[in-house]
Formats: sequence, structure tokens, C-alpha cells
Amino acid sequence: MDEPRNELQDLGEFGLIDRLTEHISLVQPSTIKGVGDDAAVIASDDDTVKLLTTDLLIENIHFDLMYVPLKHLGYKAAAVNLSDIYAMNGIPQQITVSIALSNRFSLEAVEELYTGIRLACKRYDVDLVGGDTSSSQTGLFLSVTTLGEAKKGEVVYRDGAKENDLIFVSGDLGSAYIGLLLLEREKQVFRANPNMQPDFEGVDYLLERQLKPEPRKDIIEMFRELDIKPTSMIDISDGLASELHHICSQSKKGCAIYEDKLPVDPLTYQQSAAFAIDPTTAAMNGGEDYELLFTVKQSDYEKLKDRLEITPIGYITDAASGLQLISKKGVTYPIKAQGWNHLKNEG
Amino acid sequence: MDEPRNELQDLGEFGLIDRLTEHISLVQPSTIKGVGDDAAVIASDDDTVKLLTTDLLIENIHFDLMYVPLKHLGYKAAAVNLSDIYAMNGIPQQITVSIALSNRFSLEAVEELYTGIRLACKRYDVDLVGGDTSSSQTGLFLSVTTLGEAKKGEVVYRDGAKENDLIFVSGDLGSAYIGLLLLEREKQVFRANPNMQPDFEGVDYLLERQLKPEPRKDIIEMFRELDIKPTSMIDISDGLASELHHICSQSKKGCAIYEDKLPVDPLTYQQSAAFAIDPTTAAMNGGEDYELLFTVKQSDYEKLKDRLEITPIGYITDAASGLQLISKKGVTYPIKAQGWNHLKNEG
Repeated sequence: MDEPRNELQDLGEFGLIDRLTEHISLVQPSTIKGVGDDAAVIASDDDTVKLLTTDLLIENIHFDLMYVPLKHLGYKAAAVNLSDIYAMNGIPQQITVSIALSNRFSLEAVEELYTGIRLACKRYDVDLVGGDTSSSQTGLFLSVTTLGEAKKGEVVYRDGAKENDLIFVSGDLGSAYIGLLLLEREKQVFRANPNMQPDFEGVDYLLERQLKPEPRKDIIEMFRELDIKPTSMIDISDGLASELHHICSQSKKGCAIYEDKLPVDPLTYQQSAAFAIDPTTAAMNGGEDYELLFTVKQSDYEKLKDRLEITPIGYITDAASGLQLISKKGVTYPIKAQGWNHLKNEG
Repeated sequence: MDEPRNELQDLGEFGLIDRLTEHISLVQPSTIKGVGDDAAVIASDDDTVKLLTTDLLIENIHFDLMYVPLKHLGYKAAAVNLSDIYAMNGIPQQITVSIALSNRFSLEAVEELYTGIRLACKRYDVDLVGGDTSSSQTGLFLSVTTLGEAKKGEVVYRDGAKENDLIFVSGDLGSAYIGLLLLEREKQVFRANPNMQPDFEGVDYLLERQLKPEPRKDIIEMFRELDIKPTSMIDISDGLASELHHICSQSKKGCAIYEDKLPVDPLTYQQSAAFAIDPTTAAMNGGEDYELLFTVKQSDYEKLKDRLEITPIGYITDAASGLQLISKKGVTYPIKAQGWNHLKNEG
């Protein structure tokens, strides 16, 4: 009874996933790719594959209903799951949403949540085709699964980056994290004095990045338009540093990232200062950006260089060089993965 | 702030699902069937469709870890989800499992759970291809999604039953429910006196039906072997009565069920008496049987009549006749759906 036990928090989420999936053997001929990328890849017809991905969203772990409106929560739950399909260079088509909730929620509250889900479905042309509902003893639990499609030859994995490939990100980084800090700060102010009104003047963009992220369907459409297939791709949910580690470890490569190239919105810069946070830290480790990180051959640079929606931030190196951040002053630092780890105490 | 609100428990699970899905419009050409059956049906190639289904399993709502071993829980979580694919006359191929759990679980406990999941995958030739992990503040949450396949013309829906079709069920009914009552009884005994050993002699079958249900892949194989396509089908998760209501309402028909035809195991009879429960009630409303309920044309009777794994229990009537149970004494009673309703207070 008193045998030593291994604690989940010592292992972390990625460690746990590695342990649980190490004995998996695949027997179905239709399974092209199982665990280990943004989505599983399943054979469909001669030209097409299906993509399957699933996410959990749990109250007080992934969201705080003190400042997350239910409609936004529904929208975000769908949006972040769709993002995983785009990260495979695919198009999401069907979604299922399961919810467990306690009786403290009214029907009207659940309908708000579903209004948000339906808005996201409508915006991204996705059909809500199923789900499950249950009560829970405490809290709200959401489980979202998306089925997507891609041409067989167009699927982009995490493991295809080659030496000297260019590394791009879409949009800007760190803003969703600063948005979260703003919401958390106002929550503390409100707790101290419930009569205080939140002070959100001029920071709408940061709040929206946190509360209502938009998956980058437009980037996938850009690839089609320019006839480009990235060599590797992943969406940025746990922070750029963590996703670079996934790309590099699966591709067995290293990378060099230039701090001065990181796309950080001026508002993120400005508000970072208020929290005494280095904007680069917000960009590298903030998480929840739901932007796309991808690598392309150097020969694709000409096609991409004038596109405002993406930014080149560095290049792929050999594995021995490791993952490096070259600072604005020209100093090189190793990039540490500090993913958004719910299972580790260090948070 | 004090506006009247609609309580979820007044609506019940099916009422809630109806409300949440009434505004859904489908835009993807690949969506053949969305919400409303055991699985969604998605176009794949010219001959084949994909089937998609998802289930939640929540601690102290769907299972009690005081008497459910984690390995069994993992097995059951997968098994009940696969059952939904068989209920469409399809073959499950891929599964994703998401878990949220608190730090009271050790790594060894989670590995036990996954051992059960992998066992079910192996037994039913299904690949575990993904999932998500998270911490939770309390309790264990499982979300399982299965992707299956069927020939386009072989998919069986709930809405295809025709008047005079014969109604069959596989296996026996009510045993999983009596198994649950036995486990609950021993839990109370243990609580009163933790030194008491559980008294499970001779009731293994009932416990196994509750703890380790097997989805009826063999019935789907039987249909192939005999070249039979049922006119409608559903799996029995909420109890025969509830599933008959689904078949009849979606097919716009009624039914006549003969009490003396209901397949009830002798052990279920015997142990029902100990709980002062009518075995017919256990069979009609117990739930968690994970047997298949299906209807066939009368002309298929010859092919099916000698199959021991299935039992004819009645026939489909016109809608105006309603759903009727003809008792052993020849008295006719209306069949009420008393599904396993987690959201209603009445339980």
C-alpha cells in the first residue's frame, strides 16, 4: 500500500503522453499517422486523407468564467481545435462538442456557449455533427473533436524540416498572454473591490487575442494561392519555444531564431512593461497565440517575402547546433521549452 | 440579475440536446448525417463512409472508482464508444482518448487505465491515434471519440424501421444493471464495516456485464455472413425502453414487445429478487447493456431464427398504436422511456 508512486506533476504533460503512447501499435491499414502531430491522419480515398484532432478545455485550468464570457468560450473551444487541422495544412469540415456541467449553469448559459460554438462553425464552414452531454459534480468541461480533410500530398507534418529551411510565423506573438495577464489583474482588482470597473481602455486587441483567437485559415489559403507546401508546420498553443522544440526534435534538427525578427505587436510591448515582463519572453513562452509556425525551402522565399501576414524569424540548423535564440545584442542563448504545463507544479 | 432561468434538470439530457441542436445547419457536402444517430456519417470515397462518435465518462456520474478498477474503466470507456459504431453497422478503426485528472492519481494509476484502453483496442482491432491530457481540480474525466468505416449502402440508421418489421435484440438485458446494484450494495456494506469482504460468489457474470461490457462486433459480422441489412439499429446504453423510443420516434412508427420474449439471464432473474426488482424492469430500463437493438424485414426471419446470439422480441406497428409491452398475462402496457438521465433530479 505504501509503495513509492510516481507523481504526475514530476512527469509533466509531454512526459505523460510519451509514457502512455510508447506501447501503441497500429494495426489498421487506414491509419497513416497516429499520435505525435497536430492531428492523426487517416486514409480516405485515393487522393484524400481525413485529419482527426481533439482538445479538452477545463474550467479553472484552461479558462476562468470570472472573465471569460460563455459565448467567447464556445467560440474559442472550436477555434483552437480547428487550428490543429490548419496546422496539418488541411481544411476542417466536421466538429463534435461534448460538455459536462453542473446544475449551477442554466439552460440560457449553455445556449450562450453553443451560440459561440455555432459562430465559429459558421465562420469556418464547419458542421457541428455530434457530441455528448452530461452533468458534472463541479465545473464545466468541454471536449472538442474536429475531422478535417487534405489532399494526400499536401499534408504537412512536424517532422519534415530540413537544414537551411526558413522559419516563419503568422501574425504576432505574446499578445494573447498579455491579454491573459490583463484579465487576471482586473480580476484581482475586482476581488479587492467589487465596485471597481475594469480598466481595459485601449487594450481591446490584447483581450480579443486571449478571449477570441482566430485560427489561421487564411495562411492555408495563401499556401494554395502561392503553390507552396511548407516542409513542416505546427500551431502555437504552448508558446513559440515549445513548438520549436516539437519541430526540431521530430525533424532531428536545430534552429536559429532572431529576437529582433519576432513579430510583437506595439501594444504587447507597451503592456508587457506594465507587468515587468520582457516582450520576448511573452512571445517565446506566452502561449495561446494559435498562430502557425512553419518552415519552407529557401527557394520559396521570393514568393513569401512580401506577405504581411507572416514573418521570417530564423532558419533550421543541424541537430548538433541545438535551438538558439540570437538576441538583439547578438548574444546567443539556448531556447528552453517552457510549455504551458498543467500537470507540473511550476505551472 | 434575478430573471427567471430555465434549469437544466427540468429539461433532461435529451431535451437539452434537442434545444442545442435545433438551429444547426449543415454546409459541408461531406456531411451525410449529423446529430441524431449513434454516429455522424461523413463521405469518404465513392463506396465508403466514415462514422464519427464521441462519449464522455465522468467520475461519480458514470463510474465510481470505489469499485471500478481503472483497467476495467479504460476498457469500458473504449468498448462503449466502439458500440456506437457497430450500431451503425460499421467497423471502428481509430480512437482518441482524452483524460483530465487530479494529482491524487499516480502515473501507475493512469497506466492501468491505458492498459485497459489498449486491451480493448487490441481486442477490436482499433488504433489509438490521439487524445489530450490535462489536470482537473477534482475527479477523473474521460472523453473518447471513435472513427469507423462502413460501405455506403450498408449504414443502418435509427429511422428506417417499417411496419411489420421484426424487432431483435442481441445477448441478454438487465444483467449490467443488476451488476451495478450488487456493486453498490457491497460498497454500502464496506462503508459500514471496512473489514467485510465483498460477497460476490456466483455473480461474476453480472459484475462482468457491468464492469467489462463487450460491444457486439459479432452481430455485425453475422449480418455480413447472412447477407442481411437491418432496417434500423441502435445500441442499448440507456435501456431497451429508451432505445425503442428513439427507433420508433425517428422511424415514425410504434411497436409491440412481448415481455415473455425478453432475453433475461437466469442469474439476473435470481438476483433481481434479492433487490425486489422486477426482472422486466431491469431489462426495459436498466441500461448499460451495450447490446444491439435492430429491426429486420419479415423475409429475413428464416435466416435469423436459429441464431442463439439474438432474440426476436416483437414487431414494428404504425405510429398511432404507440409503444406497447404485452405482459406475460397478455395485458398491454405503454412503454415509457426512463433513460439513464444524468441531468434530471429523478435520476
